[in-house]
Amino acid sequence: MSHVSTVIDVNADLGESYGRWTLGDDEAMLQQVSSANVACGFHAGDPAGIRHTVRLVRDAGATLGAHPAYPDLRGFGRRPMSLAPTELEADLIYQLGALEALARAEGMRTAYVKPHGALYAGMSRDGALARVVLGAVRAFDPGLAVLVAAGSAAEEAASLLGLRWVREAFADRAYRPDGALVPRHEHGAVVTDAGEVAARAVRLAREGTVLATDGRELELRPGSLCLHGDTPAAAVLARTVRDALVEAGVRIAPFAPRP
Amino acid sequence: MSHVSTVIDVNADLGESYGRWTLGDDEAMLQQVSSANVACGFHAGDPAGIRHTVRLVRDAGATLGAHPAYPDLRGFGRRPMSLAPTELEADLIYQLGALEALARAEGMRTAYVKPHGALYAGMSRDGALARVVLGAVRAFDPGLAVLVAAGSAAEEAASLLGLRWVREAFADRAYRPDGALVPRHEHGAVVTDAGEVAARAVRLAREGTVLATDGRELELRPGSLCLHGDTPAAAVLARTVRDALVEAGVRIAPFAPRP
Amino acid sequence: MSHVSTVIDVNADLGESYGRWTLGDDEAMLQQVSSANVACGFHAGDPAGIRHTVRLVRDAGATLGAHPAYPDLRGFGRRPMSLAPTELEADLIYQLGALEALARAEGMRTAYVKPHGALYAGMSRDGALARVVLGAVRAFDPGLAVLVAAGSAAEEAASLLGLRWVREAFADRAYRPDGALVPRHEHGAVVTDAGEVAARAVRLAREGTVLATDGRELELRPGSLCLHGDTPAAAVLARTVRDALVEAGVRIAPFAPRP
Amino acid sequence: MSHVSTVIDVNADLGESYGRWTLGDDEAMLQQVSSANVACGFHAGDPAGIRHTVRLVRDAGATLGAHPAYPDLRGFGRRPMSLAPTELEADLIYQLGALEALARAEGMRTAYVKPHGALYAGMSRDGALARVVLGAVRAFDPGLAVLVAAGSAAEEAASLLGLRWVREAFADRAYRPDGALVPRHEHGAVVTDAGEVAARAVRLAREGTVLATDGRELELRPGSLCLHGDTPAAAVLARTVRDALVEAGVRIAPFAPRP
Repeated sequence: MSHVSTVIDVNADLGESYGRWTLGDDEAMLQQVSSANVACGFHAGDPAGIRHTVRLVRDAGATLGAHPAYPDLRGFGRRPMSLAPTELEADLIYQLGALEALARAEGMRTAYVKPHGALYAGMSRDGALARVVLGAVRAFDPGLAVLVAAGSAAEEAASLLGLRWVREAFADRAYRPDGALVPRHEHGAVVTDAGEVAARAVRLAREGTVLATDGRELELRPGSLCLHGDTPAAAVLARTVRDALVEAGVRIAPFAPRP
Repeated sequence: MSHVSTVIDVNADLGESYGRWTLGDDEAMLQQVSSANVACGFHAGDPAGIRHTVRLVRDAGATLGAHPAYPDLRGFGRRPMSLAPTELEADLIYQLGALEALARAEGMRTAYVKPHGALYAGMSRDGALARVVLGAVRAFDPGLAVLVAAGSAAEEAASLLGLRWVREAFADRAYRPDGALVPRHEHGAVVTDAGEVAARAVRLAREGTVLATDGRELELRPGSLCLHGDTPAAAVLARTVRDALVEAGVRIAPFAPRP
Repeated sequence: MSHVSTVIDVNADLGESYGRWTLGDDEAMLQQVSSANVACGFHAGDPAGIRHTVRLVRDAGATLGAHPAYPDLRGFGRRPMSLAPTELEADLIYQLGALEALARAEGMRTAYVKPHGALYAGMSRDGALARVVLGAVRAFDPGLAVLVAAGSAAEEAASLLGLRWVREAFADRAYRPDGALVPRHEHGAVVTDAGEVAARAVRLAREGTVLATDGRELELRPGSLCLHGDTPAAAVLARTVRDALVEAGVRIAPFAPRP
Repeated sequence: MSHVSTVIDVNADLGESYGRWTLGDDEAMLQQVSSANVACGFHAGDPAGIRHTVRLVRDAGATLGAHPAYPDLRGFGRRPMSLAPTELEADLIYQLGALEALARAEGMRTAYVKPHGALYAGMSRDGALARVVLGAVRAFDPGLAVLVAAGSAAEEAASLLGLRWVREAFADRAYRPDGALVPRHEHGAVVTDAGEVAARAVRLAREGTVLATDGRELELRPGSLCLHGDTPAAAVLARTVRDALVEAGVRIAPFAPRP
């Protein structure tokens, strides 16, 4: 058995409340993760809420990532949008700058970027889109790392643009034999059994692999595992995964140091 | 006759278009002003439009100012809003960071801040509000200057917080004997005759004074004159004012150097 | 003991989710209330969500009320806003028409109107504001009833405009001796003990009175009791209140019949 | 020469201002058109502005049409969006109800529907989308007519759903040999010469035909001609077209009578 890694990052999307509406339990999730992808206001997160989340991230000792999205509050950034490249690029720089300013006001700095929802899905498949998104990241700060889906168009674009990238994998999502995620609306897309998610997490962390829907072993070699924080059971599942990783001798640590 | 100044800044609000909607003629105004207050997206200005405006400001050689506002697109930031201090503070840092990021992507830096509309009016009167607003500016960057109404609560708050402030005056607005502007909805609030506006501008620049509605002379000693850019005749009026200033031996120059 | 009423309406605010964000448990609340105040999209409620809520209201046999608000998603309609009367009037007609259209598509009709949040609070105090709001209601449909705070400026305005009005009272809110609610941010504003809320509800229903903060008895004679639905414990509290009312011989029935 | 028609409707998009931003000259356009497509708030048009436009339409004696759109103020409804059918349907009913309520408050009624921008383009090509959109129109009011592109998927869907439809043609847009419009971003998409637009309008009205880009004659048989109102020269062009139609013996009259 080859140990791909005995250190892995665990990331989750946080700060996705908005005004009166609360989503997820950020404080509970921050006890389980090493990296926090914080919403930047376009799909979720009002400025005061973002700032509050940054404080929680800081106090939990996690690394801060920007989680920018399409401008779509009602659709939570999950609907593909047709933005002109100049428009998308400006939207991203705007969000990155806004988060960075709130972060600095709390003594923090953004360490990495993970695009959200339909933007993430699009840049995993579409190289042109990925280059626009990552071009915006580089224009904002070429020192930022990016979290990408393993083997995706985004990974390729990040290499091309000279950005540091880290692969992430999803312990609770089913993978197709070609390495793509089974779409959310399909049966079996999400693994809900905590024990199975934990076992997949350990395998991803220690061996870098996951079993696809046809039983074939996929080599993803992730530097980070993504956990979902927006369901009621999220924090409990995250705790189970974390405990299993620690028990298996895997150390959880941010892939990007705090700047 | 005492020359208060033979150098004065001329500022205008720019970048106030939004999506399909155009407001004002930014390129024409930039031929007349030395400082540009650029909208930050909350009352006007989408990210791509803001970035385009920053390029125009850069190419015209003007100084870039941030023009943050209440979050109110439909009301154009002109309606007083009841935000909690922590909310307002975060809203401002968010806007300042967003503009700064777009500015840096174009090789520019924000040099000063001038709050917009109801926020500007409120902080001119209300010291507590002014301290929240300027506290946010300082938290973002204590090196930024602020444009304030002469003798206003904002001026006092800026002094208190140790921010560099510069007084501005309005050559096309009537002043009450107490130094406050005649509210927009009152008769005679706006001076529309170009010759009269120009004469007031020259007097403000050279002697630092303006005649109030009762004929009394007010000493404002402004470092900047604000011109309005959102009317069809704005650029022509701005040109008349500029020509009159130059003819009167007044040099137009930014109050804040380009960073 | 004089029985003011042995029939009372129980109303709650519903449909206040938005996109990805869920607020309250509408289905659980609909088992306890006879009237449903449904958000119209300006403070909460996207069109598909509103339509879904209308279906729930219909299937639960409750009466449908419109719950229009200031245009303020981020502030959840809880921040006072300075809208011109013509603007506010149009905003209200727009919301009432939008809800009515979705209601009719589900075989329902709006029976009454209860303004939301800061708009409700404002029209309880300010007669001019109340006349604008209720003028809009009348312009939309003079057959609609309105829920008003007992003895408020809204009650007076409704009488003046010839609209049918029904007083509501809050079993879980403390009342000042002058009949106004203790503001939310003050200590003791909200009664949280379920038993006490239920006892107050029974007293309000059977005797029409409530004890103010100084122990004085206030005669409110409400036709409807408002229950809050946006807290985790809301449905349980509502159930307790309903059971107490029924046990005390009070029949719960809509104040306005389904049109 | 066969006279297809000596009566034709002329329609234009109106009410597309928003808050501080003005688009087009509605009053001038209303002197030239018989039908007014009025924005419903999702791509343009705040409630007070919509109501004001309805009054202008009423006073000009034109017929009122609803001009609903995707929920996209910043993109002016011109960006294709991926909405679930239930979401799109509810969005449309919401907009139709909101406009109808404002119309009735001014003594008007909506007579027809013409979807806007990317929604119109999408339903011209995509039958499934057209059926969702027109299903919403029918659910709101089966007595409404719809303006459709000649020979489009929308025309077919309207027939299928039993809605009255009327074809429209664009005198200032180039047509491909297959009957589709040359996309806006392609060279020659828009005919700008007023004389040529007028000549095309007369031919469309009298003979029902237009010459495609390859010179071939397309038989469109429109019941309405669409004029654009959002450019500075729009009203002048509209006047030229109207004069040419009248001189050619064509009577301009609404395709749908005022309800």
